[in-house]
Amino acid sequence: MKGLTYNYKKDFPILTKKVNGETRSYLDNAATSQKPQSVINAITDFYQNDNANVHRGVGSMSQMATDKYESARQTVADFINAPASKNIVFTRSSTESLNWIATGYATQMLEPEDEIIVSIAEHHSNLIPWQQVAKQTGAKLSFVGLHANGTLNLAELEKMVSSKTKIIAINHISNVLGSINPIAEIANLAHQNGAIIVVDAAQSAPHLKIDVQKLDADFLVFSGHKMLGPTGIGVLYGKTELLEQMQPVQFGGEMIDDVQQQSATWAPVPLKFEAGTPNIAGAIGLAAAIDYINQIGINQINAREDALMKLALSSLNEIAGVTVYGPTDFNNHKGVLSFNLAGIHAHDVSTGLDLDNIEIRAGHHCAQPLMKFLDVESMVRASISFYNDETDINRLIESIKTVKEFFANELA
Amino acid sequence: MKGLTYNYKKDFPILTKKVNGETRSYLDNAATSQKPQSVINAITDFYQNDNANVHRGVGSMSQMATDKYESARQTVADFINAPASKNIVFTRSSTESLNWIATGYATQMLEPEDEIIVSIAEHHSNLIPWQQVAKQTGAKLSFVGLHANGTLNLAELEKMVSSKTKIIAINHISNVLGSINPIAEIANLAHQNGAIIVVDAAQSAPHLKIDVQKLDADFLVFSGHKMLGPTGIGVLYGKTELLEQMQPVQFGGEMIDDVQQQSATWAPVPLKFEAGTPNIAGAIGLAAAIDYINQIGINQINAREDALMKLALSSLNEIAGVTVYGPTDFNNHKGVLSFNLAGIHAHDVSTGLDLDNIEIRAGHHCAQPLMKFLDVESMVRASISFYNDETDINRLIESIKTVKEFFANELA
Repeated sequence: MKGLTYNYKKDFPILTKKVNGETRSYLDNAATSQKPQSVINAITDFYQNDNANVHRGVGSMSQMATDKYESARQTVADFINAPASKNIVFTRSSTESLNWIATGYATQMLEPEDEIIVSIAEHHSNLIPWQQVAKQTGAKLSFVGLHANGTLNLAELEKMVSSKTKIIAINHISNVLGSINPIAEIANLAHQNGAIIVVDAAQSAPHLKIDVQKLDADFLVFSGHKMLGPTGIGVLYGKTELLEQMQPVQFGGEMIDDVQQQSATWAPVPLKFEAGTPNIAGAIGLAAAIDYINQIGINQINAREDALMKLALSSLNEIAGVTVYGPTDFNNHKGVLSFNLAGIHAHDVSTGLDLDNIEIRAGHHCAQPLMKFLDVESMVRASISFYNDETDINRLIESIKTVKEFFANELA
Repeated sequence: MKGLTYNYKKDFPILTKKVNGETRSYLDNAATSQKPQSVINAITDFYQNDNANVHRGVGSMSQMATDKYESARQTVADFINAPASKNIVFTRSSTESLNWIATGYATQMLEPEDEIIVSIAEHHSNLIPWQQVAKQTGAKLSFVGLHANGTLNLAELEKMVSSKTKIIAINHISNVLGSINPIAEIANLAHQNGAIIVVDAAQSAPHLKIDVQKLDADFLVFSGHKMLGPTGIGVLYGKTELLEQMQPVQFGGEMIDDVQQQSATWAPVPLKFEAGTPNIAGAIGLAAAIDYINQIGINQINAREDALMKLALSSLNEIAGVTVYGPTDFNNHKGVLSFNLAGIHAHDVSTGLDLDNIEIRAGHHCAQPLMKFLDVESMVRASISFYNDETDINRLIESIKTVKEFFANELA
């Protein structure tokens, strides 16, 4: 049975979502965001009015579609202050971006004895590709740990980094802990040792201003669908010289220059990476999402989310038996709010919240090594967006209390 | 300036497309198709009503999104008569599907002295991935040629195939010549010699009934956007035992079973291939496109396109100085109509047709080895869909005559 609808109220847009006629608090924004109508309209508009393939024809429609697609690339470049649109490669997702960097750059460049460093708090998408690089090249994969408060142990990282270190791959914001990593400092540390930094910005792009030049990031990736954009579109930013060194990972139409029977040469960056027909509507939808974010202002979004997180953290900490993971300071706790209730399995908490029409997640959050490091099997994770409001947070807190009482009675 | 709109008339849907207020004949369907309103609506409906991430949460919204996504997989499986939905892997495009088969299967299985056979008429996406496999494994890449009428030289292929042949990778319909390859026969030949067949069905899926079991295809790929579906979604069909042997090519969330710091194990087929958040809306849009095709009937589509091709071929052949490439028989000439005008460059023809509001393509059509084989630099290609009508074909023919006269006067 269908029953989901939503509306944006005026001024600061507040999401109102109905499932089976009941209002539902959507607090799974770190998994994927909801979409503004302007993003949906941009996709519809493309298919109804501008649909054609890109970079192929001399026809007017093909030219118009190409202009729109390349204009979306410029919008993304501007959003993260990339030097030029050619520094932006469109992919399916952060996951694909990281895999391409691992396969197309790291596997080509690394040798035995070289080292890749990741944090223990990486999403599987910023871990398993590096395991594969290590397996294929003989490089070593090392892990930097966390302080007790969930922040990165920077002193440990400083001791680890050496001339053998070639890549530091790290999240900008942890998808479990919400902690912000000091990317500019880590980039500096990497560069002093002749290494590069690969930044997984999947959880920061929706919340924080990203300036790849200020961060001095060598590669940086994020996903459209987590920041109001469509599914199936992601971004791979790279410095020009690195993208030029990096090998294409997929081969086919549009990424070539000359093709002989037994060999082929590639088009310039970024087209050499985009084999086949790209997700044209996805890129255009992502540009519309960025326009929407820019209209509100990313700093306004950040401030509003901080206020919601402050309320959530303080309310949650008042409930006895709740363990909150990650920094206690709301300013360093972005987007996600992971916790457990003593004696109750995360999935049971999640089921209780679901019955109260609150959409959250429970599990290992694609971060099994972090779960082991923290010695927990799973966590409940609520994750917020600017379009949530205090009502969502209060409903979450009340529902947690109800779940706690229910199980207290069950177990009594 | 915006100016494209389109409408579907009732009964057999006929596309009416306006660019800058003028009616435009869209004859670039082999590059990408236009979209029925029902496909656009399915995407809009998903984002407005069902949007959530898949395979992740225990939340009701995530479950509903997962149900829709997996139901789309079943729709695709039914469309090509796959034994089960697990035989369907969602990718970005045919190109990605072919790359994954090359990297995840062929590179793992092939050894020096092994042989891959492709036809000289492959799209770059079904050629360059095999060049890479050959380079990495030491296997040999061989080419089977064509008869003078543009059809595959099956006798030559029969002579080539040996116990060293491990893979025959071939298009179902050529994107340049429109010729249909006898896939079932070639599959039989492959299997008798212990090889597998990889079928590029990008140009056949929109036009012909595909039954992977009748064809006995080992792998078969196609793209959503060429068959009324969205951009950014493609299909990789594989026999179960082959998908189980095939290694994942991308690594990250949702494709794993257990993740340790230095190693990981994978989820079952097909999820082990779908790392990260997939193009959920894309899969749902593709299912809506298939529903639309099924409503008309793929055989009805085929018959209508045959009638349009018959008219186009006979009219084009009446113009002196025109060379048509591919089979002369309209029944074996599907979708695409490639030609040249004596003494006039394909791009000049294309520009002339564009001025007459006819959208076609000119160039090498991502098939440079075929161009060399046929000893032409480029071709003009008009490509039809069932939603074109006789008016589009007549306009094309008239415009070609005008271009021819214009250049005759220019050159006189």
